[in-house]
Amino acid sequence: MPDPDLHFLGELAAQLRVDAIRASAAAGSGHPTSSLSAADLMAVLFACHLRYDFDDPGAVGNDHLIFSKGHASPLLYALYKAAGAITDEELLTFRKHGSRLEGHPTPRLPWVDVGTGSLGQGLPVGVGIALAGRRLDRVPYHVWVLCGDSELAEGSIWEAAEHAGYEGLANLTAIVDVNRLGQRGPTRHGWDTGAYARRLCAFGWHTIEIDGHDPGQIDYALQDARVTRGRPTAILARTRKGEGVSDVENREGKHGKPLADPDRAVEELGGPRSLRVRVAKPEAVTRASGAASEPLRLPAFPVGERIATRTAYGEALVALGAARRDVVALDGEVADSTKTETFAESFPDRFFECYIAEQQMVAAAVGMQVRGWTPYAATFAAFFTRAYDFVRMAAVSRADIRLVGSHAGVSIGEDGPSQMGLEDIAMMRAVHGSTVLYPCDANQTAKLVVEMAGRDGVSYLRTTRGATPVIYGPDEEFPIGGCRVLRRSHEDLATIVTAGITVHEALAAAEALEAEGIMAGVVDLYSIKPLDVHALREAATTTGNMITVEDHWAEGGLGEAVLSAVADLGPRVVQLAVRSMPGSATPEEQLRDAGIDRTAIAEAVRRLKWRA
Amino acid sequence: MPDPDLHFLGELAAQLRVDAIRASAAAGSGHPTSSLSAADLMAVLFACHLRYDFDDPGAVGNDHLIFSKGHASPLLYALYKAAGAITDEELLTFRKHGSRLEGHPTPRLPWVDVGTGSLGQGLPVGVGIALAGRRLDRVPYHVWVLCGDSELAEGSIWEAAEHAGYEGLANLTAIVDVNRLGQRGPTRHGWDTGAYARRLCAFGWHTIEIDGHDPGQIDYALQDARVTRGRPTAILARTRKGEGVSDVENREGKHGKPLADPDRAVEELGGPRSLRVRVAKPEAVTRASGAASEPLRLPAFPVGERIATRTAYGEALVALGAARRDVVALDGEVADSTKTETFAESFPDRFFECYIAEQQMVAAAVGMQVRGWTPYAATFAAFFTRAYDFVRMAAVSRADIRLVGSHAGVSIGEDGPSQMGLEDIAMMRAVHGSTVLYPCDANQTAKLVVEMAGRDGVSYLRTTRGATPVIYGPDEEFPIGGCRVLRRSHEDLATIVTAGITVHEALAAAEALEAEGIMAGVVDLYSIKPLDVHALREAATTTGNMITVEDHWAEGGLGEAVLSAVADLGPRVVQLAVRSMPGSATPEEQLRDAGIDRTAIAEAVRRLKWRA
Repeated sequence: MPDPDLHFLGELAAQLRVDAIRASAAAGSGHPTSSLSAADLMAVLFACHLRYDFDDPGAVGNDHLIFSKGHASPLLYALYKAAGAITDEELLTFRKHGSRLEGHPTPRLPWVDVGTGSLGQGLPVGVGIALAGRRLDRVPYHVWVLCGDSELAEGSIWEAAEHAGYEGLANLTAIVDVNRLGQRGPTRHGWDTGAYARRLCAFGWHTIEIDGHDPGQIDYALQDARVTRGRPTAILARTRKGEGVSDVENREGKHGKPLADPDRAVEELGGPRSLRVRVAKPEAVTRASGAASEPLRLPAFPVGERIATRTAYGEALVALGAARRDVVALDGEVADSTKTETFAESFPDRFFECYIAEQQMVAAAVGMQVRGWTPYAATFAAFFTRAYDFVRMAAVSRADIRLVGSHAGVSIGEDGPSQMGLEDIAMMRAVHGSTVLYPCDANQTAKLVVEMAGRDGVSYLRTTRGATPVIYGPDEEFPIGGCRVLRRSHEDLATIVTAGITVHEALAAAEALEAEGIMAGVVDLYSIKPLDVHALREAATTTGNMITVEDHWAEGGLGEAVLSAVADLGPRVVQLAVRSMPGSATPEEQLRDAGIDRTAIAEAVRRLKWRA
Repeated sequence: MPDPDLHFLGELAAQLRVDAIRASAAAGSGHPTSSLSAADLMAVLFACHLRYDFDDPGAVGNDHLIFSKGHASPLLYALYKAAGAITDEELLTFRKHGSRLEGHPTPRLPWVDVGTGSLGQGLPVGVGIALAGRRLDRVPYHVWVLCGDSELAEGSIWEAAEHAGYEGLANLTAIVDVNRLGQRGPTRHGWDTGAYARRLCAFGWHTIEIDGHDPGQIDYALQDARVTRGRPTAILARTRKGEGVSDVENREGKHGKPLADPDRAVEELGGPRSLRVRVAKPEAVTRASGAASEPLRLPAFPVGERIATRTAYGEALVALGAARRDVVALDGEVADSTKTETFAESFPDRFFECYIAEQQMVAAAVGMQVRGWTPYAATFAAFFTRAYDFVRMAAVSRADIRLVGSHAGVSIGEDGPSQMGLEDIAMMRAVHGSTVLYPCDANQTAKLVVEMAGRDGVSYLRTTRGATPVIYGPDEEFPIGGCRVLRRSHEDLATIVTAGITVHEALAAAEALEAEGIMAGVVDLYSIKPLDVHALREAATTTGNMITVEDHWAEGGLGEAVLSAVADLGPRVVQLAVRSMPGSATPEEQLRDAGIDRTAIAEAVRRLKWRA
């Protein structure tokens, strides 16, 4: 690395500041002061250390740069302009309708890996990309993450710190812009970079404290970060928010608004410039692991046997992993329960134990798919609530990830409500572009696990703790967006629409009713989102009576999904769902108490008969 | 404190182990090995350090004990038996149907403050209780939290560590049962108690590393924790999972299952005992702050002015805080945006800045309500997704908390999707016993803020960033569970049901339609849960056409809530909601793009006319 040209770096930083101010002024909103504090850090990174081919964002050897402090987007876009990736004209479309230069960066820009803006997410995702580099791609790219000091209060940052420190991710550098001021006021630690250094050091990181406006110190620190072995590096850079503009420099109340007098600020910074920064290109490298494919040999579960869908998930994932070398698995220290363990034993190189840190687990999955891997991440359905912001942001990131939640519903039995996934369907449905699947038997589960692999966006599979009878043959297909009509007759008084464990309750109820001379149809709605609108509307119009059954709260679940599809047709719909807080009990008692077992379903159908 | 009777402590610990094994054996499930590792720690705590009146769980001076590792419930219940709070007979009802001794502790037991079982939550809640003790109650109780080592991987633990360290909560002690083994296998740090001590020390804690099976060391550490000033204490106790039973001691694969041969284990431990532990009672103390009440003087906003509902929240909370001294406010470093800042300035003693740590914010609110305070916690609606597991568990804890999410929906404008609350209604509806409110004007907001104060369970208020016209007078009432029919005529072609910002769009649409000779009713459904089923069913039957409009994803929101209430009546329901991923744009452009503005609403009504 040659000695940096300090004059050029100063000029480049001034240009970045000017352009961040101009972009925010043109938008009438944005975060110029948060951009100004980090301008020197990023000027030196781009000019001297980043290896990135802006003409080929998918180049295997490209470094990754994530703005974890996504609100500093004016700085990021100013950097893109300086690198020649966007024009000045486009820069000034910042935050305008239709512009890809959004208020917070998203992958609508080809150089942005993931959406940021919910603080504390960029570093966890960066850990995922760095893990992929070290353990999957085995390519010497470096992951640079620009963090704010405020966001170090987020627990997810410390999940990431622990994960990166433990894995010794020397290919990861956090550049922390310690500008002392959060949105509302000073941070807890102000300019005490030592406070952050002590914490990160305790988590196994190499730390460097510098003046974040001194190009020489920055250059030294970035070089040190690049060559440090065995540990991730955190550069704790003392900066001033609004640096370079006396109206706002180091002042409270200047967060998240354009400058009052942008022209004076630009003048104070020496006026506009049109420098170009030549970002070094990466060496040409190839991945160690390809996506070579072998024929898929899914397990075949004999009809009539009792096998938990979580077990089928584990076995199917192994089969998929054997067929596709791009499939990787993550788990939150419950792989013996979710059954990811089967994969972990078969493919230890592609298994990632994330311990009890669900946010980091989802973030790591997002990071791995940035690098083209196909991640499946599992924990208890209930504990994905821990990572909901990460799931939500995965959709903003246009990430393709697969989540598998076990121990869904009251049917887990004795462990009680803390372990029961009872809001997971509602939560996952309300994610843009998501897929929500809930299989009732082992062969169906296996097929859906495979379907998920090719699915865009966030896919969620809900599995059951207890064993359920295998009712489908191993050769049957279950396309996403479909359903299975398990019982139907011309005399059906009602159609029972359900999925997962209560499919078996519905079948038993229909059988018992038939013995009484009452016919009821049963639909297995294994694909809750997208759902088979055509089949549901047909059921709604033929019987006119629908009963939805779900081992989930009444709100936002399968029942409401069905209602959304059929409400304009005017069927009478009865929703059976969990409505009272469960305690401990056997699975059978839980289903009975919740009013979603065979007896309750049959009774609901009988009531329709009485009312008819 | 007298020297501990080591023989008694050994016998007591053996009894606790025996009873934990017996309870799990009787249940046929549970976590005896996780109980055995912590038995000595808890024996010494109960015999020598805890101050608690089991006959008066509400005594102001009582210490608080939280099992953050909630799966060690057999140990907790064995302790209750030893303290004379429950009988041996009840102990053996563990995990059985109807028993209050659930698989994980819940406040169905009067000595349990909060439900645990989702790991990493007990310590954050303990921080809230300790904060209340120090800053609100000003009573010298001590908060003891038993943590597992596995759960220290959760980011929420480090949010709590930061909050407690920064606040110098000397009345808080974390007792970490470092038994080396998680559920699936060894933890990252095994018995390296120093790894945890370094981390906690960096976060400002006093740390003590001990042998967790040595009563003398335990006694010393607990005493040290009680008397340490200015800092919280963490006792890092090296223990063996399954201690005392050779079949399971320090072995993998023994988590979360009853012992194979409980009789032999009990025999190995010397058989059952029937010791009673005399837990010291607290000194009689009184709270420094009472709940003295003054007349409520809510702000009155003039009809026709434009005021953001978030602003009204801030002003109403100040009025409520003046009237009720039990009202406290928390915020996630965005008080200038949520407008909690108004309260913070008026009542700094009752305001808690939680920085960007939403899990800790919600946990602190839960902790404060344990002590009888009435907390309101605010951040952006989008960022409550960060704390969803804590909100879910607040319901299991039967906690009365109030959450206020600002910047709801696409109408925030330029900041883009990362900042938009678009899943908050779905998320909050799917919480047991929750209340979900979404006001459209300032006076309505003020009234709802007051209504929330008296509400059981989790209450959620959704506010809007932009200013909206005041349409209600300051004397109007808005009971929870009600709605407002804003327009209705006998010629209504449809009823538009909406809430919040789109109420104004609906009114404008109805006006425009009237000019064309098309009449449409408008219902302001400010209470989304519970909702006014009667009024909705009346609207459904009179017009037969309903149009729901919401600034939220289509899934799980207002539209589906309405469908749930009316579907069996067979109205034609059209759901207008956000269905594509927003970018940056002005608020008006966002509403237009999402198809939820006045133009889209009017068009939806017109389409009904054409179809009719």
